[in-house]
Amino acid sequence: MDASFPLPVFTENAPLYDQLYRHIAGAIQSGALSPGARLPSKRRMCALAGVSMSTVETAYSLLAAEGYVLAKPRSGYVCARLLPPAPAAPASLPAAPPDPPRWAYDCSTSAVDTSVFPFSSWARITKEAVYENPGLLQRGHPQGDQPLRAALAQLLSQYRGVRCTPEQVVVGAGADYLLSLLLQLLPEQRAVALEDPGYPAAYAAAALHGRQAVPIPVDGEGMDRTALERSGAGLAYVTPSHQFPLGVTMPAARRSQLLHWAAAAPGRFLIEDDYDSEFRWSSRPIPAVQGMDRAGRVVYMGTFSRSIAPAIRVAYMILPPALLERFRATFSHGACTVSRFEQESLRRFLVQGLYGRHLRRAGNLYRKKCALFAGALAGIPGAVLSGADAGLHFLLTLPRYSEEVLVARAAEKSIRVHPLSRYCHAVPPQPSTVVLGFAGLTEGEIGRAAELLREAWK
Amino acid sequence: MDASFPLPVFTENAPLYDQLYRHIAGAIQSGALSPGARLPSKRRMCALAGVSMSTVETAYSLLAAEGYVLAKPRSGYVCARLLPPAPAAPASLPAAPPDPPRWAYDCSTSAVDTSVFPFSSWARITKEAVYENPGLLQRGHPQGDQPLRAALAQLLSQYRGVRCTPEQVVVGAGADYLLSLLLQLLPEQRAVALEDPGYPAAYAAAALHGRQAVPIPVDGEGMDRTALERSGAGLAYVTPSHQFPLGVTMPAARRSQLLHWAAAAPGRFLIEDDYDSEFRWSSRPIPAVQGMDRAGRVVYMGTFSRSIAPAIRVAYMILPPALLERFRATFSHGACTVSRFEQESLRRFLVQGLYGRHLRRAGNLYRKKCALFAGALAGIPGAVLSGADAGLHFLLTLPRYSEEVLVARAAEKSIRVHPLSRYCHAVPPQPSTVVLGFAGLTEGEIGRAAELLREAWK
Repeated sequence: MDASFPLPVFTENAPLYDQLYRHIAGAIQSGALSPGARLPSKRRMCALAGVSMSTVETAYSLLAAEGYVLAKPRSGYVCARLLPPAPAAPASLPAAPPDPPRWAYDCSTSAVDTSVFPFSSWARITKEAVYENPGLLQRGHPQGDQPLRAALAQLLSQYRGVRCTPEQVVVGAGADYLLSLLLQLLPEQRAVALEDPGYPAAYAAAALHGRQAVPIPVDGEGMDRTALERSGAGLAYVTPSHQFPLGVTMPAARRSQLLHWAAAAPGRFLIEDDYDSEFRWSSRPIPAVQGMDRAGRVVYMGTFSRSIAPAIRVAYMILPPALLERFRATFSHGACTVSRFEQESLRRFLVQGLYGRHLRRAGNLYRKKCALFAGALAGIPGAVLSGADAGLHFLLTLPRYSEEVLVARAAEKSIRVHPLSRYCHAVPPQPSTVVLGFAGLTEGEIGRAAELLREAWK
Repeated sequence: MDASFPLPVFTENAPLYDQLYRHIAGAIQSGALSPGARLPSKRRMCALAGVSMSTVETAYSLLAAEGYVLAKPRSGYVCARLLPPAPAAPASLPAAPPDPPRWAYDCSTSAVDTSVFPFSSWARITKEAVYENPGLLQRGHPQGDQPLRAALAQLLSQYRGVRCTPEQVVVGAGADYLLSLLLQLLPEQRAVALEDPGYPAAYAAAALHGRQAVPIPVDGEGMDRTALERSGAGLAYVTPSHQFPLGVTMPAARRSQLLHWAAAAPGRFLIEDDYDSEFRWSSRPIPAVQGMDRAGRVVYMGTFSRSIAPAIRVAYMILPPALLERFRATFSHGACTVSRFEQESLRRFLVQGLYGRHLRRAGNLYRKKCALFAGALAGIPGAVLSGADAGLHFLLTLPRYSEEVLVARAAEKSIRVHPLSRYCHAVPPQPSTVVLGFAGLTEGEIGRAAELLREAWK
């Protein structure tokens, strides 16, 4: 077969051994060399291809290592039986989703103001966290590193009245991730009661984990307790500090009722998402429900994605003893999903007082923006604002237009506002209502957007 | 009631309004003030407590905002009906798991050598990534930011023969996290074939997501194809570059067979975990199976947790078109779990050539360590080493001792080695075999550990 042996045309672009290897591998894959066919001996190949013995030896040993040829005692190298390439399916990529429209003013609720972010402190801290902690390169604690968990327990006790030890803290890459983890820890077969209207990601997480989601109406004090009792759900997810999206703050009486609901049957748990608790304008924050829980039935959750920035993927949850035990049994071999350098940066940010300072600056700015936007829109005849005493969004109701018209007229001015129905499930949305976020707009933009909205909705 | 109204003893530790508020809230919670009881008028309270009107007003408005009291027209503030605190359960924390024993030499497989990590480059890059990219504070793309995905697609095409566009790349906080995400995307009701012995976290992930795991034996070429065919599984998870833990490299013929298996029925997928592909000692890496796939049935996965460090929680997967479509439908509203600053740091590390340089340095070091450890242990009479031509661990078989004796005698010298049976499920482990990782030991430690092991196993 020597005469007919397919030889490569060598170029200068790659090592000779590599060209020889690729050429023979390709011939075997395409069938040009049949299974069982012998390669020329190494010496013969040197002569045929005009290359050195070491080139041939390297190419042949690669072919053997990768299974293209088999080394047979006394007969040299024999081509292996490869299957022809698997049939090609029409595997073209699905069309990319269309680019989102560009808005002059985006009043959605997920943006933050990055102008107050302490870039230079964060950059310094990040650099120090890397330089001063070579040990952080190794694998850390599955719940997050102890020093960060201690700083979080301290922070939450001081500012939110949360009662916990660092052992109960679980750090993870974002609130949605932790919710997903939590749904794997909670007692199986339990339906989860969700606020309606409510946080869409909580509905999505329940669906992904195969849990029945039961929408429960929200009244002026938060999740309806009677509806919760009747629902048969074993778990309830609530946002007591600033209900998303209605902006209701749950008063002490309702908190106490929900704790009673949780303690009234074995295996019930209340998930307290302390959404927007950092930002209250008209009174100071109400302590967390978790701090009132004496039965070990509350899971407290929080995140830095709004109080620092969405880019910082760090959230935390406080597990009651029963769930902590389950976490240790289930997830103790995994790694925490937050980079240890970022954990250490955040810890420094907290304990050096930079977080407190940042929250005060950001809070002052958001309070001003909220007052500015709400004040300008309150001038629209017939408009009713609600939920504006806390958080980074509020609701506007304007009975003379339907929700669709409100959204469409805003869009004509290139202003993105979300309809309240976007967050509604079983409960019909309060009519003629839109959700207005302001955190991502500058004060100048807020003024101009408010002017355009006054015109659009006049 | 004025005379009997419980008044606080003021201290200097907190604002007066706060002390007044806490005192009254506590009296309502404890029942000392009954539901329906009236608070003294504001003016009367000023006189009773000897504080200013603004102090009383602030305290009363907090009590009202939090639902402890109700403001009734013309009758002032009336105590609300709170339920007594929920009953206390014996909610003590479960005992913390015992501290892991401290080993003089840890030969487990998850450590890396941090001495070659380019701390100063990484610190510089991290700082630059923060300073130069204020826009990164906002929410990013759910699959990870496009520039990093483009750099990964380029890297994988160049070094691993992976064929993909940046649109197919999904970045996430660690390989275990991505595997968990993937199990939510893959067709439901399909059992997943896993290598036996194999990666424990893959078994754990299947269990968590309620998928049946089918252990498939590994022979000298990787996952047994006939057993896979017979298993009825619709998904298969393999580590072709350096099978964990056996260290087998899957030759081209077996790769082709697995591709045929995947293409032979609708909805079958092959998950290629390209574990340890960065570190080969005796020949260069074999291109990824993904690059040979023409039917869109391979999901390629990789991580930087070994090639850079476990602390860097960045892994990636390449989705074939059908799964990409499913990802967009299911997860497009979530956020990527990796901090955008860390994504940008990693991108700079890749495109500035620092990653390539780091891999070469780390590779040279690990190659030396592998040769040193394997060479020293090969001198033990009767010992057979395998899987030492790639990766950061190898196997040692010593037929005259049982696995338990090998592990126990090493432990007597304070050396941690894992038994092979730790990774076995249905298949009985090859007897008298231990798994030896060396990446976390210095060269000096390797020499001393080998000497102790020679003594322990003589």
